[in-house]
Amino acid sequence: MSPKLILRNAKIATINEGAVGYGMINAGALVLSDGQIEWVGAEQDLPAQYVGAAAEDLAGRLVTPGLIDCHTHVVFGGDRAQEFEMRLNGAGYEEIARAGGGINSTVKATRQAAFEDLVTSALPRVDALIREGLTTLEIKSGYGLEREAELTMLRAAREIGKRRDVTVKTTYLGAHATPPEYKGRDDAYIDEVVIPTLIAAHQEGLVDAVDGFCEGIAFQPDQIARVFEAAKSLGLPVKLHAEQLSNLGGAKLAAAYGALSADHIEYLDEAGVRAMAQAGTTAVVLPGAFYTLRETQKPPVELLRTHKVPMALATDCNPGSSPLTSLLLTMNMGCTLFRLTPAEALAGVTCHAARALGLSDRGVIAVGNRADLAIWDVSHPAELSYRIGFNPLYKRIFGGQA
Amino acid sequence: MSPKLILRNAKIATINEGAVGYGMINAGALVLSDGQIEWVGAEQDLPAQYVGAAAEDLAGRLVTPGLIDCHTHVVFGGDRAQEFEMRLNGAGYEEIARAGGGINSTVKATRQAAFEDLVTSALPRVDALIREGLTTLEIKSGYGLEREAELTMLRAAREIGKRRDVTVKTTYLGAHATPPEYKGRDDAYIDEVVIPTLIAAHQEGLVDAVDGFCEGIAFQPDQIARVFEAAKSLGLPVKLHAEQLSNLGGAKLAAAYGALSADHIEYLDEAGVRAMAQAGTTAVVLPGAFYTLRETQKPPVELLRTHKVPMALATDCNPGSSPLTSLLLTMNMGCTLFRLTPAEALAGVTCHAARALGLSDRGVIAVGNRADLAIWDVSHPAELSYRIGFNPLYKRIFGGQA
Ligand SMILES: [Zn+2]
Ligand SMILES: [Zn+2]
Repeated sequence: MSPKLILRNAKIATINEGAVGYGMINAGALVLSDGQIEWVGAEQDLPAQYVGAAAEDLAGRLVTPGLIDCHTHVVFGGDRAQEFEMRLNGAGYEEIARAGGGINSTVKATRQAAFEDLVTSALPRVDALIREGLTTLEIKSGYGLEREAELTMLRAAREIGKRRDVTVKTTYLGAHATPPEYKGRDDAYIDEVVIPTLIAAHQEGLVDAVDGFCEGIAFQPDQIARVFEAAKSLGLPVKLHAEQLSNLGGAKLAAAYGALSADHIEYLDEAGVRAMAQAGTTAVVLPGAFYTLRETQKPPVELLRTHKVPMALATDCNPGSSPLTSLLLTMNMGCTLFRLTPAEALAGVTCHAARALGLSDRGVIAVGNRADLAIWDVSHPAELSYRIGFNPLYKRIFGGQA
Repeated sequence: MSPKLILRNAKIATINEGAVGYGMINAGALVLSDGQIEWVGAEQDLPAQYVGAAAEDLAGRLVTPGLIDCHTHVVFGGDRAQEFEMRLNGAGYEEIARAGGGINSTVKATRQAAFEDLVTSALPRVDALIREGLTTLEIKSGYGLEREAELTMLRAAREIGKRRDVTVKTTYLGAHATPPEYKGRDDAYIDEVVIPTLIAAHQEGLVDAVDGFCEGIAFQPDQIARVFEAAKSLGLPVKLHAEQLSNLGGAKLAAAYGALSADHIEYLDEAGVRAMAQAGTTAVVLPGAFYTLRETQKPPVELLRTHKVPMALATDCNPGSSPLTSLLLTMNMGCTLFRLTPAEALAGVTCHAARALGLSDRGVIAVGNRADLAIWDVSHPAELSYRIGFNPLYKRIFGGQA
């Protein structure tokens, strides 16, 4: 028998009610064993065999599921600080493009980066997330936009899961943008690069899900559909960057493929919401990009509530539109900018984020789930969303290990 | 002779050009001695007597002045997380007030808190700021709103400067709000409480500056003027919360008293800007409150530039409108929300913040200044404003001590 970890005198936000409430147990206890949650409940109900055992007294601290960031582009080459500065100094789009800015600058830097560079430059960003109680992280490709560079990005993402105590789920995003060498030939890029690279990446075991960017400035629904067909034939789940800047019906398309999630969705309409509800597709809202791009169109939170579409929250960590590495700040932004409730925000980075990744063994504190936990120096879960730029993490537990 | 600390192989943002640029020295060195900067310049110009001495190689890291937060309400009782949650759950102003929310809830909790409670509850917030390279911090009273509680707040602020390696400047803000027991009798509150308490606090050496809140929901200019007259007769500098929600001419009034700063100033007009320019009054912009309150009226940044009014940036850390404890995030918000340049943002938390506190011995890396420094794992100073929710601090030096 492996040693058990018993935690007592805890406030536990189990999140087992989804966004309706925190699922609070106010004087709770937990028993962790073999990396799983063996028992959770009120301390007074702790089974007799655990009562005398050595236990850690949490002094009334709050326990939540470990945090999950279900949408990141955390692996990339270079950075875009100078472009950020140029823009604030008054440079226009053309001038920035001429100076090598925009997504193409990240593509260029990512292609030039070696595998090890991609891993080591991403690790400080991942570490920042981990310091706030992160235990599961999605990482997308999509800055290589050619076979080898996309594969290298995905290998780097997998490697991060080996170098840190964090679960990494990889997402192939070849259909992120058309690279310069395919300019004006989007269809050829999809057929000659995106789909063959997906097959190669899948053969190497590098792909947990397949994503695309459906937008006027990126790919049209019929192009995304070809990528989704390829994913389907490989048995891979899909998700989509949809309705961020306009409404192309991307969420509806994604729902038709039973997508795990549709992400951004500022311009989502009620037909799209209904399609997502029917398909069980999670809405992933990304306030960091909304904030950075100074958007004004908010995701249709009220419609999503009405139709009971689960909402997840993620950093969208990327060098251009969301250089954000804090899920706690993302929770505050979700509340402040999108008017989510603190309970919705916490569900959004735990149980609904797990759902957006197709993971049913975490995100809720329940018997049999992975023992991924965050323990906080706060007295009420609303504090996690209320504070701005403050990290009250006391301890993180990953797979039962502190 | 005290031991000298020599730092080599550094990028140094001296900020000696104010907001015009960073005042960069790209291959620089620093000599610190007796808590001061003894020498700063290009490494190739390092005087002969230092060349052979033991030195710390900073491997090209960025050195800036230590950060300065020139406007905080970091000492207070209680918290307002539940009020934040109630509002997001749809509660109106009345309902929140009935449940004991709003500033009165903080006043009540502050009055009930003992000196030691006020100190120990503020320290984690101050520590969060220090972890990002903070070396000087302003702390206001203004939640006691009666003699003893105001004095206790100021004593707690001074105590924080003893328990941590940080310089604390105190500001008396008795004219923050009218407490419940003086409801409808603002003038009596000013005359019977605010001014007598200022005199008592000054006699105890607790006041470095005097502040007020000039707003429709707070005090009128003639009431603020009475407080400023009292400050003047005590020889204390003044500053003012002005033009946050409307234009009452507060900045002009403050300038007429030679104020160190006028703060918030979203509704400041050109006449006010001119008055500030003439008086040498610093503009303190507070994007955290703008963000939390979802304001749309931005401070007149272009006018402030035209009239060469120095702009400082601060957290406004307080439990209601800005529960923010990150100056780096404040810099990002200043750029993203107010369109400051990264150079202006860095000047805003260093040299202009020092100016807003009347401190001429810090905020710029120059010979004779205090050796308060922040050393960062970044290659360009724009990265400090560009990233969101990331702390690249490598090391902080306070008065020459690491
Ligand atoms: Zn994305
Ligand atoms: Zn204030």
